[in-house]
Amino acid sequence: MTDTDVIQSYVHDEAEWAPYGAPLLVVRPRSTDEIQVVVKACIEFGVPLVTRGAGTGLSGGANALDGCVVVSTDAMKTIREINTSEHLAVVEPGVVNDILRAACAEHGLWYPPDPASSPWSTIGGNVATNAGGLCCVKYGVTRDYVLGMTVVTGTGEIVHLGRRTAKGVAGYDLTGLMVGSEGTLGVITEVTVRLRPMQEPERTVAGYFASVVDAGKAVAAVAASGVIPSALELIDRHCLAAVDAWKNMGLSVDADVVLLGRSDASGMAGEHEASEMLRCFEEAGATWAAQSTDQDEADALFSARRLAYPALERLGPVLTEDVCVPKAAVPEMLERIEAAAVANDVLIANIAHAGDGNLHPLISTPIGDDEARTRAQSAFDQIIADALDLGGTVTGEHGVGLLKKGGLSAELEPAVVEMHRSVKKALDPHHIFNPGKVFD
Amino acid sequence: MTDTDVIQSYVHDEAEWAPYGAPLLVVRPRSTDEIQVVVKACIEFGVPLVTRGAGTGLSGGANALDGCVVVSTDAMKTIREINTSEHLAVVEPGVVNDILRAACAEHGLWYPPDPASSPWSTIGGNVATNAGGLCCVKYGVTRDYVLGMTVVTGTGEIVHLGRRTAKGVAGYDLTGLMVGSEGTLGVITEVTVRLRPMQEPERTVAGYFASVVDAGKAVAAVAASGVIPSALELIDRHCLAAVDAWKNMGLSVDADVVLLGRSDASGMAGEHEASEMLRCFEEAGATWAAQSTDQDEADALFSARRLAYPALERLGPVLTEDVCVPKAAVPEMLERIEAAAVANDVLIANIAHAGDGNLHPLISTPIGDDEARTRAQSAFDQIIADALDLGGTVTGEHGVGLLKKGGLSAELEPAVVEMHRSVKKALDPHHIFNPGKVFD
Repeated sequence: MTDTDVIQSYVHDEAEWAPYGAPLLVVRPRSTDEIQVVVKACIEFGVPLVTRGAGTGLSGGANALDGCVVVSTDAMKTIREINTSEHLAVVEPGVVNDILRAACAEHGLWYPPDPASSPWSTIGGNVATNAGGLCCVKYGVTRDYVLGMTVVTGTGEIVHLGRRTAKGVAGYDLTGLMVGSEGTLGVITEVTVRLRPMQEPERTVAGYFASVVDAGKAVAAVAASGVIPSALELIDRHCLAAVDAWKNMGLSVDADVVLLGRSDASGMAGEHEASEMLRCFEEAGATWAAQSTDQDEADALFSARRLAYPALERLGPVLTEDVCVPKAAVPEMLERIEAAAVANDVLIANIAHAGDGNLHPLISTPIGDDEARTRAQSAFDQIIADALDLGGTVTGEHGVGLLKKGGLSAELEPAVVEMHRSVKKALDPHHIFNPGKVFD
Repeated sequence: MTDTDVIQSYVHDEAEWAPYGAPLLVVRPRSTDEIQVVVKACIEFGVPLVTRGAGTGLSGGANALDGCVVVSTDAMKTIREINTSEHLAVVEPGVVNDILRAACAEHGLWYPPDPASSPWSTIGGNVATNAGGLCCVKYGVTRDYVLGMTVVTGTGEIVHLGRRTAKGVAGYDLTGLMVGSEGTLGVITEVTVRLRPMQEPERTVAGYFASVVDAGKAVAAVAASGVIPSALELIDRHCLAAVDAWKNMGLSVDADVVLLGRSDASGMAGEHEASEMLRCFEEAGATWAAQSTDQDEADALFSARRLAYPALERLGPVLTEDVCVPKAAVPEMLERIEAAAVANDVLIANIAHAGDGNLHPLISTPIGDDEARTRAQSAFDQIIADALDLGGTVTGEHGVGLLKKGGLSAELEPAVVEMHRSVKKALDPHHIFNPGKVFD
């Protein structure tokens, strides 16, 4: 597709503040072989290639470059296999996360990785960014579920990496290297993922707190208690209000922050985990806390968590952070985020995979206010510096893309960035895959 | 150390059949800085460097090369940190697996990876080979527990890879790439591992079977049942007899094969898992099966499992397989192993992490019988071909080293091997790290 109007929906992801260019064309291949043709052509003509899934990324990783070919995987939506004996599925990259999860559920199986974008984002995009989600605190990230993949390489070859067996150490973990490489090392054309038996029904514990810092203390207390919740999410009043203004869910609560903990342990163990979480919430100063007896109410709170980002986006440009800090540092980090908001005179809403220490301060600015954007950028930089100062990382799950490139060089030693360049050069010798993303 | 007598204990690992050379010298550094000095010297003088932990490897990965420097990590045994809030430990590479596990237990924490060599093998070696163990069926392999590491690189620099946070996607997963790279990409001088809360007490289900194939059917049935046991081990009568002959544990049982299943789920869930395993064992034709009520008896059976390899070694040279096949293919693979024993007139004993489909046929030959060695090699090659034919891998957890190099090239596409070479060249530009291991 070359029509400028048509390709407008393929030129950037959801990272509103990241720059993007004008592609030469957009292709929508239907097979690995077709992708190979595209890659070979890009090698031959020295044209950069940007792969994209649903474009729900938040770092600009899928943004088009001037004169590039955009490879959209949205025509490759086939679930090739769901194997109940080996607990694995084989899917094309354009399969939407929730579609795969629903298909697995029909077989009593579960694909855990659940980024908040799961109704829209694709497995290919999830793999390319090593997407996280709500489940990670107990069940890990996308990388933990990728067994193998088909890739069109930087020399234009179709290769099969990884395995279908439970274990395997024949050679380097090139599968794991591809996961999270944000389209810079090849085009992923098929993915084999590991599945788990269906999750047990969850118990939900909700807590209201008068400050993000008190909520942070509750998070640190849960971490120290030894309980591994199946989710531990934080959502502040700005986000609840934004969701409510949009969906009219009657959510606004008389609290600054809500913490949502879940346990999927069965029987007495689940009862124990829920009461431990409740104890941690109360001892950290919750103004109200209880185990939810109403599943609809609990589901509504989790829906609000998932809708927080698009709800805030309706109110104006949002600059999204994705810092991840040691769990014990969550209270201090939340305090510093508040300080950054005050110092820079910007509104910062908070959602967080709190149990992982993965915080998403959302820096919101009024539409068309350029001065506010400058102040937001300054707050963004301050938060990144604070996260690194506390022993954290600049990106827990969204990826580096364009927005976190500065953060990556601040986080990694120059010799480590140099190792990245060496690996990139080794596997993408013609330098066609998403050049200029992640690192220069 | 250069004294030929002294360095004899540093020139090979436990892969009795793998060749080894005469090193120039063996060094026992005490710090990352000292290792850096050694690496820089090797770069300067173009001398190959072979890193070794305890030398319990079974593929020849740590075997000395002629004229190389052997870097032994056995003087670097400090556990630097056990962090109860972040659930992580920071250790030097020479720390023995069981020592770390015991130290974690004192804090109510658990480092799951438990290769059968855990009383002797080191974390550095476990990481270099991505070691597995009994826990893997439920808790994964070493890679799943490595958060970060310090490495002396192929350019002689000290770098810090990975992170201390629960999640992180800043750049390529170079930590994961180093795990399982068998000393070919750098020297690992410190490791940060993830810990879990202490495991719950386990229930044990034992089953006796008249044939390995019946036991294999039980394994496939457990996999299909949705139960994820905390261990599912197979041990045959040859191994039980060898352990008994050595340790006089009174183990020999009136069965060809014993399956040992464990569940660490708590309360009713554990009861349910144990009874499901029991049902699978019985339906597959167990001649006797029961949930063990005697913890000592259960522990004795698991000890026998761990001692099987050294017990067999006492009887003559053992050639160890490490194939891993899809779980549904376990009965067929066990049948083919029996056929390979008959066709080649060799004794093949079996131990297996059966729940993972990871089988360890142990091809045993009489001491000094060269013809038997030739037949054993033929059986070894046949088993590798069969595993690949069934969609398996040549090595589930022992690594490629020298013994599985042929297997690796049979398993991986030439273009994938070429990717390995490119990555090796990128990160080890002077070609000093364990050259000739894993692939040529």
